[in-house]
Amino acid sequence: MDKISLRQKFELIRETWSPKIVGELNGQQVKLAKLQGEFVWHSHENEDELFLVWRGRLLIKLRDRDVELDEGELFVVPRGVEHQPVADGEVQVLLFEPKGTLNTGNVRSRRTAPDPDWI
Amino acid sequence: MDKISLRQKFELIRETWSPKIVGELNGQQVKLAKLQGEFVWHSHENEDELFLVWRGRLLIKLRDRDVELDEGELFVVPRGVEHQPVADGEVQVLLFEPKGTLNTGNVRSRRTAPDPDWI
Repeated sequence: MDKISLRQKFELIRETWSPKIVGELNGQQVKLAKLQGEFVWHSHENEDELFLVWRGRLLIKLRDRDVELDEGELFVVPRGVEHQPVADGEVQVLLFEPKGTLNTGNVRSRRTAPDPDWI
Repeated sequence: MDKISLRQKFELIRETWSPKIVGELNGQQVKLAKLQGEFVWHSHENEDELFLVWRGRLLIKLRDRDVELDEGELFVVPRGVEHQPVADGEVQVLLFEPKGTLNTGNVRSRRTAPDPDWI
């Protein structure tokens, strides 16, 4: 039950596409991730997923359109909706999603991070 | 299913201590609020509550200590824990909490905002 500084926590993250848990509440987790490059297309069968861009600019590709998120912009990807995050430069993002949500959802790939660590 | 700009949404908020809903996911809501002055002491029986300070500095008084949150810092008040938010100047804060959470928790006061609006 300590406060969390996003800046300090992001400094601890070395790998991209590997979300780290910083908080838990009501069965949900707050995760931080650094993103760079293209992620895999995937969806989450039972979980809505919130992306809040902290630093940088994130493109979230959907099958029917693109969503561009600048710093201070958030977007909720509803459950079942296929999406592909794409980051041209390094992006720092806060995620809010149910505990146990897999980063690659319904897809297993080398980018699947099955057991996120707390930082 | 549109993106949300925190800056733009905060510009729409006139009243203090009156959270507005900007997103909903997994039974939880994302709310934005402007705070200024002292709020009432209260707790939430069944809801953990996340405060993320977007602009300004927020003091969250607990019965045994104070938590000072600067911009980019977050804190989760666990269910059942009495707390009093105090804002010297205007503070812009993002809240994550279950849908239906009352701003004054177990206390009814003139600051109770029973049915938050979407903005």
